[in-house]
Amino acid sequence: MTKRKSYKLGDIAKRFGGELIGDPDIRIRQVATLESAQSTDITFVAQARYLPQLDRTRAGAVILGSDARDASGLSRIICTNPYAYFAKVSALLNPPAAVVPGIHKSAVVDKSARIAKSASIGACTVIGKGAQVGDKAIIGPGCFIGDKAIVGAATRLHANVTIYHQCRIGARCIAHSGVVIGSDGFGIAREDGVWKKIPQIGRVLIGDDVEIGANTTIDRGALDDTVIEDGVKLDNQIQIAHNVRIGAHTAIAACVGIAGSAKIGRNCALGGASMIYGHITLADNVSVSAGTLIMKSLEQPGTYTGVYPFSSHQRWLKNAAHLRQLDDLVKRLRELEGLAGKTERNKP
Amino acid sequence: MTKRKSYKLGDIAKRFGGELIGDPDIRIRQVATLESAQSTDITFVAQARYLPQLDRTRAGAVILGSDARDASGLSRIICTNPYAYFAKVSALLNPPAAVVPGIHKSAVVDKSARIAKSASIGACTVIGKGAQVGDKAIIGPGCFIGDKAIVGAATRLHANVTIYHQCRIGARCIAHSGVVIGSDGFGIAREDGVWKKIPQIGRVLIGDDVEIGANTTIDRGALDDTVIEDGVKLDNQIQIAHNVRIGAHTAIAACVGIAGSAKIGRNCALGGASMIYGHITLADNVSVSAGTLIMKSLEQPGTYTGVYPFSSHQRWLKNAAHLRQLDDLVKRLRELEGLAGKTERNKP
Amino acid sequence: MTKRKSYKLGDIAKRFGGELIGDPDIRIRQVATLESAQSTDITFVAQARYLPQLDRTRAGAVILGSDARDASGLSRIICTNPYAYFAKVSALLNPPAAVVPGIHKSAVVDKSARIAKSASIGACTVIGKGAQVGDKAIIGPGCFIGDKAIVGAATRLHANVTIYHQCRIGARCIAHSGVVIGSDGFGIAREDGVWKKIPQIGRVLIGDDVEIGANTTIDRGALDDTVIEDGVKLDNQIQIAHNVRIGAHTAIAACVGIAGSAKIGRNCALGGASMIYGHITLADNVSVSAGTLIMKSLEQPGTYTGVYPFSSHQRWLKNAAHLRQLDDLVKRLRELEGLAGKTERNKP
Repeated sequence: MTKRKSYKLGDIAKRFGGELIGDPDIRIRQVATLESAQSTDITFVAQARYLPQLDRTRAGAVILGSDARDASGLSRIICTNPYAYFAKVSALLNPPAAVVPGIHKSAVVDKSARIAKSASIGACTVIGKGAQVGDKAIIGPGCFIGDKAIVGAATRLHANVTIYHQCRIGARCIAHSGVVIGSDGFGIAREDGVWKKIPQIGRVLIGDDVEIGANTTIDRGALDDTVIEDGVKLDNQIQIAHNVRIGAHTAIAACVGIAGSAKIGRNCALGGASMIYGHITLADNVSVSAGTLIMKSLEQPGTYTGVYPFSSHQRWLKNAAHLRQLDDLVKRLRELEGLAGKTERNKP
Repeated sequence: MTKRKSYKLGDIAKRFGGELIGDPDIRIRQVATLESAQSTDITFVAQARYLPQLDRTRAGAVILGSDARDASGLSRIICTNPYAYFAKVSALLNPPAAVVPGIHKSAVVDKSARIAKSASIGACTVIGKGAQVGDKAIIGPGCFIGDKAIVGAATRLHANVTIYHQCRIGARCIAHSGVVIGSDGFGIAREDGVWKKIPQIGRVLIGDDVEIGANTTIDRGALDDTVIEDGVKLDNQIQIAHNVRIGAHTAIAACVGIAGSAKIGRNCALGGASMIYGHITLADNVSVSAGTLIMKSLEQPGTYTGVYPFSSHQRWLKNAAHLRQLDDLVKRLRELEGLAGKTERNKP
Repeated sequence: MTKRKSYKLGDIAKRFGGELIGDPDIRIRQVATLESAQSTDITFVAQARYLPQLDRTRAGAVILGSDARDASGLSRIICTNPYAYFAKVSALLNPPAAVVPGIHKSAVVDKSARIAKSASIGACTVIGKGAQVGDKAIIGPGCFIGDKAIVGAATRLHANVTIYHQCRIGARCIAHSGVVIGSDGFGIAREDGVWKKIPQIGRVLIGDDVEIGANTTIDRGALDDTVIEDGVKLDNQIQIAHNVRIGAHTAIAACVGIAGSAKIGRNCALGGASMIYGHITLADNVSVSAGTLIMKSLEQPGTYTGVYPFSSHQRWLKNAAHLRQLDDLVKRLRELEGLAGKTERNKP
């Protein structure tokens, strides 16, 4: 971490815009949180509730929103979207490690595979017949790329990623360790008390600028393809079944499961551990809360939730038991309303 | 995908049965969906709601159920179970890729391991002492097979599968990438504020014709074995804890968790992300809906569900808050019933 | 399993304490369940409900709690914590397999990495620049240890584990196959309809005596580090997001997800498939029931639950539908109470 390249605060503001207030000559070496920042670090506040912590930070500079222009006496950059600004500053200060092109001598690459000269293939990685790896792609150690699979330019597979045959990943993607792309979908047909496997002959097609978290799995299509559009961001341990389509720039948090043939719109946000039924469609701009099971199509944008609210275990025991009699409770309420001469508003 | 072998429709009907209506000489090269099928493809309809799409398909032939005998003028095969029929036709048209037997020179196979001559061992795969791999088994690249583990005939491990020591997999099984079989169960005992590990000395025993989805994990038994019976089908990212037993021909969808020592019957169906408590028993032919947590034994076949129904977030906020007072609401209802002179039917 | 070393029952009692009743010269070779134990096995009963099975066991000896002193005529050891006692006896009878130190010739170890002479590095494992592996550590086959990562003394990585650059694992830890430590956290910022990646520059720091189950993932910190304290036990397929901190001696069952920056106290217990929101804090000694979503901080120890109770699907259909009208039902109840002249107790 020593000898890190530094930038003047003024140069950062010139590069990314925003209004600089304070000393343009402060040298910034790294990004940091309000609590841990030191004098050569730049920090940020994206939500008003963190503004009180500004008084205590030892950061050399801070990125603030227009509303918080005067919230600190520190040297600062004022902008409309401090979190996105911070992302760009951090990317500048933390460029990806330089990678030496070439194929490690322990890698096993079929002679019919086409590997760009500027690509890097890690140790003990195996690449099948007719596979392609694009310019400046980085394939980590222990990966497997199946026959005729295609990995786009500047895409990075971390260690121990598996890409099955014929699947395609676009440019500038990132797949973290343990990712599996192109495994067979769960296609089985029952006959005479026994399950028969249905060959899964579709592929997985992944667009550009997609990131895929550790141990996430994306199944190949049964007949047609499973499709992940450009700019989709997938967290860890997500399961995407066969023939799912995920619209561009949708973000999905960890532990989500999406069942077969579901279509998720563009710019959606699925909260952690939410679950989506198969064969349904979510419109663009739908948000699903964490832990929510969506069982039918959602045609309108908005936020949808279905979570049992937790309480102390004792209280839960008392309350939850009534759920199994809820229909009976409603009938009793109606009966009382009848006795009271009230109209029954919710009668089916 | 070129030079694919084709079959005459009449030959398909001879091989798998059913009634052929139309041209027996149509050449079929591939299976496809109603939407994407072309003239050399065969498609199918297994559910009446898809029959209207038959008018628009460009398929060369179609597999239909007896009820839909006249739903199309296309050349067609009429049978009792179109989906299973389709599975068989697809398997015929999409045979597994031919595999060259032998051990890749980069594989590391202990000299005491017994590898069938007809088996194929992939690059960078490691096989331990006394392990066995059966006839025509295919072990993908980057796998690990531990000491004394046994992989049955014609079983396929895709890339990067891990089988711990002494575990056994039967014949004609498939394990997808990232599968882990035989990891230690979660056996810990608390003493003086510290957890002590309990050695997990059981094995995992897997029957014949079992398929295991990507990144699914099956823990070895604590003392006795974890058992997966014949014909079980497991989707991706399932967690099966130590000493679980899963009965034959049970199918389990993705993201399911089964806690320690649970016994699942034969021919059960567990929906995606359902969760099964430890030390309980599910009878044969039980179905559990997606997202449902089963906390006690189920002695009767049938379908069981326990899911909070989603709504818009605003509506959920209003409704869900009352769940924490449900017991109080029921008391208030009883009191009103008392005032109204009604008997209190649900008093404990 | 032959030629297993045996111990006299009297020697076991001398080593671990407790009161021996019966024959001290019985030879014990293995631990076993009440049902499967044979004459050279020792078994145990930790819960009173299993005591009736003692009559039928063929075990040579049994470990019992003080309350069950006379529950069997078998030779027995009486102690305060039979399960922990059993853990110790099992560890004695099942020592880890001896491992030959050294680096397998197929492993790819950077020359700047420091590998202890007593450590064992498995086949096809790859170790990066400046990484360190401590005394008697065992690194299984197919692992990847990134640049400057540190693996402590006597820690074991099973096959196909991935440790990203700069992460640190303490002494006597165990990581099962498929574990990923140090993958990027899900840090993205939205600008102009597109997600920008925020470099994840923190590390994962893991204490001593931590066990991590198969396919569990732990993300590196965004700015500061993700921290797992000493003695934490993690089951399979757990997802721990960036900047989470887990207090010492907390145990977490399978399929749990913990969102970013959550702080879990010491000695907590999280049930299977429970989910913890980001940016909240759980006090020491909190227990969360299986399947429960915790959405806000918990300041008091105790057990917390929020699970929809399952029923037959038909019954669920009838009852669950009312949840979407629960707020309306409560209003109707209040109205009736008003008519009846009762005070409205729960009016907001």
